[in-house]
Amino acid sequence: MYKAPVEEIAFTLKHVAGLGDAIEAGLLGDLGDDLVDAILHEAGRFATDEVAPLAEVGDRQGSRLVDGRVVTPDGWRDLYKNWIAGGWNGLTAPEDFGGQALPHMLNVAALEMWNSGSMAFALCPTLTMGAIEAINSHASGELKNTYLAKLVSGEWTGTMNLTEPHAGSDLGVLKTRAERRDDGTYRIFGQKIFITWGEHDAADNIIHLVLARLPDAPAGTRGISLFLVPKFLVNADGSLGARNDLFAHSLEHKLGIHGSPTCTMIYGDGKFGEEKGAIGWLVGEENKGLACMFTMMNNARLAVGMQGVAIAEAATQKAVAYARERVQGKAPNWAGGGMSPIIDHPDVTRTLLTMKALTQGARAISYTCAHAIDMSHRAADRKQHWQERAALLTPIAKSFSTDVGVDVASSGIQVHGGMGFIEETGAARYLRDARIAPIYEGTNGIQAIDLVTRKLTLSDGDQVHGFIAELKQIADQVRHSNLGGFGATANRLDSAITDLGEATDWLLAQVRDAKVAEALAGATPYQRLFGLVLTGCYLAKGGLAQAPAGGAEGRIALCRFAAENLLSEVTALKDSVINGAASLAAAKIVLA
Amino acid sequence: MYKAPVEEIAFTLKHVAGLGDAIEAGLLGDLGDDLVDAILHEAGRFATDEVAPLAEVGDRQGSRLVDGRVVTPDGWRDLYKNWIAGGWNGLTAPEDFGGQALPHMLNVAALEMWNSGSMAFALCPTLTMGAIEAINSHASGELKNTYLAKLVSGEWTGTMNLTEPHAGSDLGVLKTRAERRDDGTYRIFGQKIFITWGEHDAADNIIHLVLARLPDAPAGTRGISLFLVPKFLVNADGSLGARNDLFAHSLEHKLGIHGSPTCTMIYGDGKFGEEKGAIGWLVGEENKGLACMFTMMNNARLAVGMQGVAIAEAATQKAVAYARERVQGKAPNWAGGGMSPIIDHPDVTRTLLTMKALTQGARAISYTCAHAIDMSHRAADRKQHWQERAALLTPIAKSFSTDVGVDVASSGIQVHGGMGFIEETGAARYLRDARIAPIYEGTNGIQAIDLVTRKLTLSDGDQVHGFIAELKQIADQVRHSNLGGFGATANRLDSAITDLGEATDWLLAQVRDAKVAEALAGATPYQRLFGLVLTGCYLAKGGLAQAPAGGAEGRIALCRFAAENLLSEVTALKDSVINGAASLAAAKIVLA
Repeated sequence: MYKAPVEEIAFTLKHVAGLGDAIEAGLLGDLGDDLVDAILHEAGRFATDEVAPLAEVGDRQGSRLVDGRVVTPDGWRDLYKNWIAGGWNGLTAPEDFGGQALPHMLNVAALEMWNSGSMAFALCPTLTMGAIEAINSHASGELKNTYLAKLVSGEWTGTMNLTEPHAGSDLGVLKTRAERRDDGTYRIFGQKIFITWGEHDAADNIIHLVLARLPDAPAGTRGISLFLVPKFLVNADGSLGARNDLFAHSLEHKLGIHGSPTCTMIYGDGKFGEEKGAIGWLVGEENKGLACMFTMMNNARLAVGMQGVAIAEAATQKAVAYARERVQGKAPNWAGGGMSPIIDHPDVTRTLLTMKALTQGARAISYTCAHAIDMSHRAADRKQHWQERAALLTPIAKSFSTDVGVDVASSGIQVHGGMGFIEETGAARYLRDARIAPIYEGTNGIQAIDLVTRKLTLSDGDQVHGFIAELKQIADQVRHSNLGGFGATANRLDSAITDLGEATDWLLAQVRDAKVAEALAGATPYQRLFGLVLTGCYLAKGGLAQAPAGGAEGRIALCRFAAENLLSEVTALKDSVINGAASLAAAKIVLA
Repeated sequence: MYKAPVEEIAFTLKHVAGLGDAIEAGLLGDLGDDLVDAILHEAGRFATDEVAPLAEVGDRQGSRLVDGRVVTPDGWRDLYKNWIAGGWNGLTAPEDFGGQALPHMLNVAALEMWNSGSMAFALCPTLTMGAIEAINSHASGELKNTYLAKLVSGEWTGTMNLTEPHAGSDLGVLKTRAERRDDGTYRIFGQKIFITWGEHDAADNIIHLVLARLPDAPAGTRGISLFLVPKFLVNADGSLGARNDLFAHSLEHKLGIHGSPTCTMIYGDGKFGEEKGAIGWLVGEENKGLACMFTMMNNARLAVGMQGVAIAEAATQKAVAYARERVQGKAPNWAGGGMSPIIDHPDVTRTLLTMKALTQGARAISYTCAHAIDMSHRAADRKQHWQERAALLTPIAKSFSTDVGVDVASSGIQVHGGMGFIEETGAARYLRDARIAPIYEGTNGIQAIDLVTRKLTLSDGDQVHGFIAELKQIADQVRHSNLGGFGATANRLDSAITDLGEATDWLLAQVRDAKVAEALAGATPYQRLFGLVLTGCYLAKGGLAQAPAGGAEGRIALCRFAAENLLSEVTALKDSVINGAASLAAAKIVLA
């Protein structure tokens, strides 16, 4: 059973991702080490003791549509009530509406633990957090006053309604329409698919954020507006009024995250209300809806990245525990009597170390991304630098972490042997749940396009070059540390960082020369390359940070394992980036 | 919907894997191109038109245990009847018992197609084929006469009962016991788990092959005997007699292959018959049971490898079809109006080409392994050489193909975007089904141990060195072909083959020096390395073979794509093999 790795998380936050520096610089107000530890400890307890035990029933029962109502799995309504009572929903939310305005770093750390407990459950508050952010950033004062406090407390939940059957990655072609009414409201008509927690029985109201098109809107992404569309209308005194004209038509039958109801939502079908059309309120300006969505995109993408980290952590814990208990055969150099624990078989050792290194790498990348987001709001200066850093790291955090989630979950099944294929073991659920994360909130292919065409070019390449220079400093510190346990780490990091630099410059040159096809052909290998280099660097940073206090042998040894085993892939990836495009174009004929 | 790629399969058999040479050398009797094509065409038709349409219902309903009977999914009993009627069960079986004694190459090609149609269904005859082989090789004439004809026709099915809860990879500790009776029979007592198609309603009788231990047997693997234990006893006239004392206690609830009943079998519980104990007959000699099982291990492992190829092929077909139809966004250089098919987005192109190259590589490796098996039986001389070649290729065919199956199925989901996560789409089933193949019939980690410690050392390393020399000839042929479409293929192959040689020699040196831990630490990376090099070489061989007849552009372009994109991983893997062991040993402390 999952146990939240609170100490490891606290260490990574403070000593690898920058929380310690931010506290020391006085950028986080009263927040000190003690409060950080207390919050993480309590979030970990909630994830371990309350969320994780209900994951299996959630997977088995799923959320079901019964007579038009979505019934959540046994125990989940109470779980959600406890969630609200714990005040977890408003960790980073504005204080004006009852939130705690804590840094995002703490929230993503807590999100990781809740998602490890149950990704299907944690999705619900994740969506609400996104809605809070969008409303707080773009909605009118009246809308904020009406909706935010209840969303921040968690009494009401939020959703994002983007996708339509023909409009997934390309939102420019969405068809849901909005009509203006004289009273300043709008009527929304259309169908949205894949709406996570679009309908359920755990909260009193559900606040939908819906992208739609006005009759006179320009074509494409410049003609999309964002609307707030509540399930129940809200009276002037804050009490709930009539049911709005929207409903969940059906739930998807999915590979994983069964507890999370994935709804097809119908707006304006005339099922409820006197006049056809779901009543909505504009958020932000007309035709600027996509920009409003993009505001919260960084956070939402990072939140999905946390799902990858979360599943990888939980799957690794489970596999390590099984490999310690299960005995089979005799490992080389096995001195005990009888059979060895399979953890001693070198191949299993390799698998588990790889799982552990990738998980810790993905965690460090994601927390570092959250740190950049925090700094972009709180730093005294260089705000643009931090915005760019967050923007650069977001696609990597999302894609690398979610790919790691799938790979590690798959390896976790393998470590369990035949038992891994049996659903009751629980290892298979991690793979089933993890598999959606590389897809939603922008597929990892879309992240790679974003990384190469929009993020590398920030400040004309200075942002990424500055970042690479910082990574080089970590390699230098390893070299000068004289810590023998690092083995060949310094050389391996140097080589990998050089490869990253070369691949970066090659891609920047393609983008500059408008050779988009060439740049995009290597985008995904480049994205993984970047994630691997960061994994090596951040594992090293952790080892260096702990060394003065002693007890760093494990961190340093894991870093060395990653440097001497996982980083060799970097050169191969660079080769694909720089030399792969021509053969890719030539081979397209076999797909015709 | 899956369509059997009969022409591609025929081409690979004849021109890559060696079927053409064997026919030309007169080693396959009357078998000529026409008959090969006719068999493949008809097997493909059966897979496409009869098996594939029933895969979804099999997955959805699964096989169920109802009042002690295993009920197969709707339509599967008739499907199995048609299977028998088609004569498919006895393709390679001995002619004396009604089989067609055709080469294994044809059988694995057909197995691929049936598994693409439904892996859960194809498992049933796969197990029967294994039972036929074990009985034919080791059982007494009386047992053969009693059981083989019905197994060859498929009227009865066969199973393999190896695993017990505490004895999976390590069969030496199994506890099922056998007691001698004066009439020459035995009584079997014990519990076996994970018994594929251990009980079902599609055949009149089920013939279990059961590993068990005699009371006076030596400890470990030298004390295991193999028994034939029929569900129904067989009367002297061949008719079915009393029910034997064995039954399926429960079915597993699995991640995939739901149509295939995975049974816990109880022997000798007293549920049936007057005297407690399931009646069994010895196959082979007492205490030599494991050797009997090993006889059929090569074929069984190769058959599982075919499942990997099969799922990869089906998943690739599905993803390519979707990527052609689905339009979204505008690809670079897109000249059409509206949105592009996603197949034109470079990242999707890369994914699909990778899927295709790996699938074809795994297929060529597996067919080549089957060719070696055939030659070991049929060649006029060098039988030992061919036995060794088959032995060397078997772990690679099993592990590389099944890893490819999982990776390609996962990529297939990704290409489908959100639709890939919806079960009705069918892409997720491929991943769920594929995930067992790297585990059963010897985990891929076990295959790697086998490859490094028992296969590289064949003929003191001469076998593998000779094989590498053959691969080098393919690289030379590419170099001298002057076919520009190959791009840098010759250089890439040369480099990869050199890496393979170095990794091989390093591992041989470790094994020679009894540095087993060091050798095993790199066993899995080496196994993948070998598979990738073979993929590159066999894609090249296909391109070279087709070039004289024209129309080879696609093969050559796909080979170039693989050489310039996938083979770069080879150097990284070699590095892990040779330089990874020390850091692996050092990092074990983080798992303590």
